[in-house]
Amino acid sequence: MSTPQIIAYLGPAGTFTEMAVRQMPNAANAKLMPVASVVEALDAVLLGNAHRAVVPIENSIEGGVSATLDALATTPGVQIFGEYLVPVSFNLLAPPGKKLADIRVVLTHPVAYAQCRSWLAKNISDHSHIPASSTASAARALGDGNNADAAIAPAIAAELYGLETLASDIGDNKNAQTRFIEIGKSAKPNPKTGSDKTSVIVELPDDRPGGLLGLLEQFAARGVNLSRIESRPVGDHFGRYRFNLDAQGHIEDEAIAEALMGLHRFSPKVIYLGSYKKADQSESVHLGNNADNDYTSAQAWFNSLKG
Amino acid sequence: MSTPQIIAYLGPAGTFTEMAVRQMPNAANAKLMPVASVVEALDAVLLGNAHRAVVPIENSIEGGVSATLDALATTPGVQIFGEYLVPVSFNLLAPPGKKLADIRVVLTHPVAYAQCRSWLAKNISDHSHIPASSTASAARALGDGNNADAAIAPAIAAELYGLETLASDIGDNKNAQTRFIEIGKSAKPNPKTGSDKTSVIVELPDDRPGGLLGLLEQFAARGVNLSRIESRPVGDHFGRYRFNLDAQGHIEDEAIAEALMGLHRFSPKVIYLGSYKKADQSESVHLGNNADNDYTSAQAWFNSLKG
Amino acid sequence: MSTPQIIAYLGPAGTFTEMAVRQMPNAANAKLMPVASVVEALDAVLLGNAHRAVVPIENSIEGGVSATLDALATTPGVQIFGEYLVPVSFNLLAPPGKKLADIRVVLTHPVAYAQCRSWLAKNISDHSHIPASSTASAARALGDGNNADAAIAPAIAAELYGLETLASDIGDNKNAQTRFIEIGKSAKPNPKTGSDKTSVIVELPDDRPGGLLGLLEQFAARGVNLSRIESRPVGDHFGRYRFNLDAQGHIEDEAIAEALMGLHRFSPKVIYLGSYKKADQSESVHLGNNADNDYTSAQAWFNSLKG
Amino acid sequence: MSTPQIIAYLGPAGTFTEMAVRQMPNAANAKLMPVASVVEALDAVLLGNAHRAVVPIENSIEGGVSATLDALATTPGVQIFGEYLVPVSFNLLAPPGKKLADIRVVLTHPVAYAQCRSWLAKNISDHSHIPASSTASAARALGDGNNADAAIAPAIAAELYGLETLASDIGDNKNAQTRFIEIGKSAKPNPKTGSDKTSVIVELPDDRPGGLLGLLEQFAARGVNLSRIESRPVGDHFGRYRFNLDAQGHIEDEAIAEALMGLHRFSPKVIYLGSYKKADQSESVHLGNNADNDYTSAQAWFNSLKG
Repeated sequence: MSTPQIIAYLGPAGTFTEMAVRQMPNAANAKLMPVASVVEALDAVLLGNAHRAVVPIENSIEGGVSATLDALATTPGVQIFGEYLVPVSFNLLAPPGKKLADIRVVLTHPVAYAQCRSWLAKNISDHSHIPASSTASAARALGDGNNADAAIAPAIAAELYGLETLASDIGDNKNAQTRFIEIGKSAKPNPKTGSDKTSVIVELPDDRPGGLLGLLEQFAARGVNLSRIESRPVGDHFGRYRFNLDAQGHIEDEAIAEALMGLHRFSPKVIYLGSYKKADQSESVHLGNNADNDYTSAQAWFNSLKG
Repeated sequence: MSTPQIIAYLGPAGTFTEMAVRQMPNAANAKLMPVASVVEALDAVLLGNAHRAVVPIENSIEGGVSATLDALATTPGVQIFGEYLVPVSFNLLAPPGKKLADIRVVLTHPVAYAQCRSWLAKNISDHSHIPASSTASAARALGDGNNADAAIAPAIAAELYGLETLASDIGDNKNAQTRFIEIGKSAKPNPKTGSDKTSVIVELPDDRPGGLLGLLEQFAARGVNLSRIESRPVGDHFGRYRFNLDAQGHIEDEAIAEALMGLHRFSPKVIYLGSYKKADQSESVHLGNNADNDYTSAQAWFNSLKG
Repeated sequence: MSTPQIIAYLGPAGTFTEMAVRQMPNAANAKLMPVASVVEALDAVLLGNAHRAVVPIENSIEGGVSATLDALATTPGVQIFGEYLVPVSFNLLAPPGKKLADIRVVLTHPVAYAQCRSWLAKNISDHSHIPASSTASAARALGDGNNADAAIAPAIAAELYGLETLASDIGDNKNAQTRFIEIGKSAKPNPKTGSDKTSVIVELPDDRPGGLLGLLEQFAARGVNLSRIESRPVGDHFGRYRFNLDAQGHIEDEAIAEALMGLHRFSPKVIYLGSYKKADQSESVHLGNNADNDYTSAQAWFNSLKG
Repeated sequence: MSTPQIIAYLGPAGTFTEMAVRQMPNAANAKLMPVASVVEALDAVLLGNAHRAVVPIENSIEGGVSATLDALATTPGVQIFGEYLVPVSFNLLAPPGKKLADIRVVLTHPVAYAQCRSWLAKNISDHSHIPASSTASAARALGDGNNADAAIAPAIAAELYGLETLASDIGDNKNAQTRFIEIGKSAKPNPKTGSDKTSVIVELPDDRPGGLLGLLEQFAARGVNLSRIESRPVGDHFGRYRFNLDAQGHIEDEAIAEALMGLHRFSPKVIYLGSYKKADQSESVHLGNNADNDYTSAQAWFNSLKG
C-alpha cells in the first residue's frame, strides 16, 4: 500500500514497547501511535484506528503482564500475529547538571523499580520511590511539577527527553527480557513457517476433578509441547482459573488442529489467540509420531477401514 | 440370495458355539459347517468356503480364548461383524443304562472340567478325567474306543448323540457366559446402531516408558470408554504385549474415528477388528462432550479460526 | 504473654490489609506496625521486629500478588500460619467541600483503578489517573503537593484521613475479595483442624517432558485436591516456571505427608509454605480412600506382608 | 536340615516343570513330588506335604498360564519365592521301531501342538492330534491303550519313557521360553538382592471411570516400572478384571512399599504374591529420584517441616 501502516503501542515514546515495534519488518515505513493502556491499544485495532498494536505480554522476571492477559481474555475480535523479544536494560537518567550524589527521589514504573532494587540499595541506599505508569513517562515527567530527581528508563529515553545518563544497565538481572506481541483484528493467521507457536486461553470445566490434568492430556495425546503455562483467575470467585498456554506449532499443523478441537470439546471456553512465528526461531516439532505426514497416513489407514 | 449363507463354526454339532450360531438372525436359512479349530474357521472365511465363521472369544470365568485372540492378531483380512452371548450350562451325559454311581471316568474339555470341579468333588469324588478337544466331541466320543463313562457337555448334545442326562447344570458358577464373535472377510462394517462396540488389537511401542498409560490416554482424551482390556504376549520375547481392547462406539462415531487414528500414530501396530452391535444392547456413549455433534461444532469453530 | 504481639502489615493505616489484620483472633491486643512493602514485612518477621506479618496473596479479580508470591519463593525461613478474606469495596473520597462534578484527577493504586473502570467511565468520563503505591496512601496524599482531586480507597480511609465520601462501592465487581496471609518464622504448624490447606511452591524438573503432568500426578495418586494453581516465572529465562499450589489438607494428614515427600523427590526445589486453617472453613477431605485411617490400615497390611 | 526338602511340581517326570525344578539351588538334595494340577501343587504346600511347589506361570508365546494365575488369585496363604526360565524345545518321540513315515496320530498337550504347527504341516501334513494333559504324560502314554503313534515332548522324556527321537527342536519359535515360579507358604520374603521383582494381583475399583489409568498411576507416581501386565476376568460377570502385575523392585524398596500401600488404598482387593530374585538378573531400579536414599532424604526433609 502507499498509505503507511499505523501501529499502536504502549507509549509514550521511549518505552521498551517502542523498541519491540522497531523490530517489526515494516516498522520503518509505519506510523507509530503511542497509547496509554493495553485496552486503548486493543481498541485502536478494533476501531480501525491502527492496523496493529504492540503490547508486552511476559517479562522473564516478573512473569505475565496481567493487563494484557486479561484484555486478551475479555476482548473478542483480536488475534496475535507475531512476537518480539526485547532485552530489558535500565539506565538512571536525570536532567543535565544532576549528579548521582544528588539523587534522593527516583521516579519509575514499580516493576522497573523492583528489578533495580539491588543496585539502588548499594548505590543510593537513602532514596524514596515515586511510581510512574511507565518508564518512559517517568523520563518524560522529570522536573514536571513533581519532586523526583531521576528516572529509571531505557537508554533511548535520554535522547528523547534531553536527559543525562548517570548509570547504565542497573538492573539486577542482566538477562532480563520482555516478550511483546503484535495484535491485529482476528483474521487468517500468517502461513506456517516451521517455527511457530499457537496461543490459547482455556477455562477449566467446573465440574470435573482433575480438570487441569484433563486439559494437559488434550495436548499430550497429540504430542504437543507447551512452552508457557500461565494461570489467571476468571475473576468471578476464588478457585476458578483460565490458563494462558503457548503450544509448539501452527494451526495448520494437524496435531494443533486436533488439539484445538479437543480443547473446544473439553473446555467451557477456549479463546484462540493466533498462530505466529516464534521470536527465537527454534523449530516447532511434535512428540511421538504426530507430524503432518503421520496424520495423513493415519487418515489413509482409517479411510481404508471404513471400506 | 437364493443360495443359503454358509456359516463355519467350532464343531462338532452340539457345542456352545452352535448355540451362538442359532442366535444369528439368518441362521435358520443358513448352512452350518462345523470345523475343528479357530484357524480352520478363519481359513474357511478367507478362502471363501464360508460367508461367516463363529468362534468363542471370551468366557466370563476363564477369560479370553487365546486361540481366537492370537488368530485374530495374526490373520490379516478378517473382521468381526457381530457378537453373541451364550449362557454356559453343563450337563453330565452318559450312554443309556449308566447310573451316576457307575461313573468313574469323565471325558470333557479341560475348561468345562475346571468349571464343574465343585460339583464333581461333591458327587463323584473318586473319578478321573480324560481331556477332550471340546465338550461336544466328548459327548460324541462316549463308548468310542476309550474308557470314559460319562461326558460333560451342553444339554443339546444328549439328543444329538443319543445320551441320557445324569445331572443338569452342574457348573460351579450359574451365571457363566461365553461370548462368541461372528467373523467375515474385512469389509465395510454394518451401520452404526447407537449400541456398538469397536474392537482393536494394539501393540505397545517398545521404546517408551509408561506405554500403557499412553495407550489409555488415546481413548481418555476422546472420552471413549473401554469395556474389555486383555493382554496377550506378542510372542517374540517376554515383556512385549499386545492389548485386545473393546471400546464403546462405532467407527462412524467421530470419537472412535479420532481415537483409532490416534492409536495408528501412537502404536507400531494396530489391527482394526471391526465395529458391530453389542449383544447386551446397552447404549454406546462417550464421556464428556464427545458426541458427534460436539465434533461437528468443534470443527465449525475450527474452520472459523482458519479464516 | 503480657507484652503485646507485634503485627507488621502492608500500610499505611486504612488499607485492606489492615482490615485483614483486624480479623485475627488476637488483633485487639496486638500492636500494629505498618510497613511499605512485602519484603519489609517479611524482613520484620525474620529480624524479630514483628511476630507476624500480614500481606495480600491473591485477589479474586487480579489474581496472585506477584510481590508476595516471589518474596515467598525467595525468602527462606518464613511460613504461612493463617489466611483471611476481605471483601474489596472501593469508595471515592475527596477533601471536604469537593463535589463529584469537580473531580478531574483521580489518585489511587493501579489495581484499584482498573477495578473501578466502568464506574469511572460512566460517572467521570473526563478524568485522568495518577498512580499511588496503595489505596490508603492515595487517601493520605490528597492535597499533599500533587494535583489530585479525589482518591479511590477503602471506606475506613475517609475517617482516618479526614475525607468525605463522594461515592460508595464503585468497584465493577461487587463480589471481589482479597486473600491475605499471616506470616511468621518457620515453625511447627498449628494443629490440624479438619478444615486446612497446605501451601507449597514447586519448581518443575527441567529435563522431563510432561513435567506439569508429573507434578499433578503426585497429588492425584494420593487423592489430594488442589484449590489454587498459580504459575510464576523462575526468572532466569523464559519457559521455566515454579507453581504456587494450595492443597486441601494439613501436613499432619497422611495423604499430604506422602504427597509432600513425593514432591521432594520429583522436583528440584520444593518450598513448604505451611499448613493452616482455611478461611472459608470448608472441610478438607481427600478423594478415594486416602483418609488417615486408610493409611493406617494400608500400613498394617504392609507390615503383615513384610513378616 | 538333615531331612530333604520336598518340592511338588507339575508332573509327571519329564515335563518342562521338572527342568525348572532342576535349576533350584537346593534341587540336588530335594525330594521331587510330581502332582497332577496347579491346585494340587498349591494344596501340597498349604497342607505341609511339600515345602515348595513349582508351576508354570507364563509362556513367551502362549502367555499367562490361566490355571496358575487363577489359583494364585483364589488361594490365600501362598507366596512366590523365586522364578526360573526354561527354554521350550520340543522333540517328536515314538516307540522304538517307528519311523517318521509311520506317524499318523500325534499325542501331546494342545499348547505344545499349537507351537509345532508349522513343522507338522510341512513334515506330517496328513496327521491327527489327540490332546494329552501334559507333554510328559503324552510320552508316557504312548502305546498305552490309545492309537497314538508319536508324542511331542521335551528331550528328557525319551530316556525316561524308553522312546526314540524322530525329530528334534520342532517348535516353530526357537526362542520360546516358559517362566516357572517357586511357591511356598506366605512368609517373610527373601532379602533384597538389587535384582528383584514384586508380584501382585489387583482388582480395579468398580465405580471409577479410568480405573486402569488410576492403577498405573500408583506405580508411575513412585517411579516403579512394570515388566508384566496380564488381565484376567474376576469371573463374576463380563467386564470385571483383575490385573497380574510384576513390578521392578523388592518390598524392602521404599518405592515398592509406598506403591503397595497406595494399591491397598486404591483397590478393593490387592494380593501380594511376593518379592523375589529375577531370573534374568537385571538390576531393579526405579525411575526418577525414587531410590531408597531419595526416600530417606525426603523423610528427613519432611521431619524438619513438622518441627
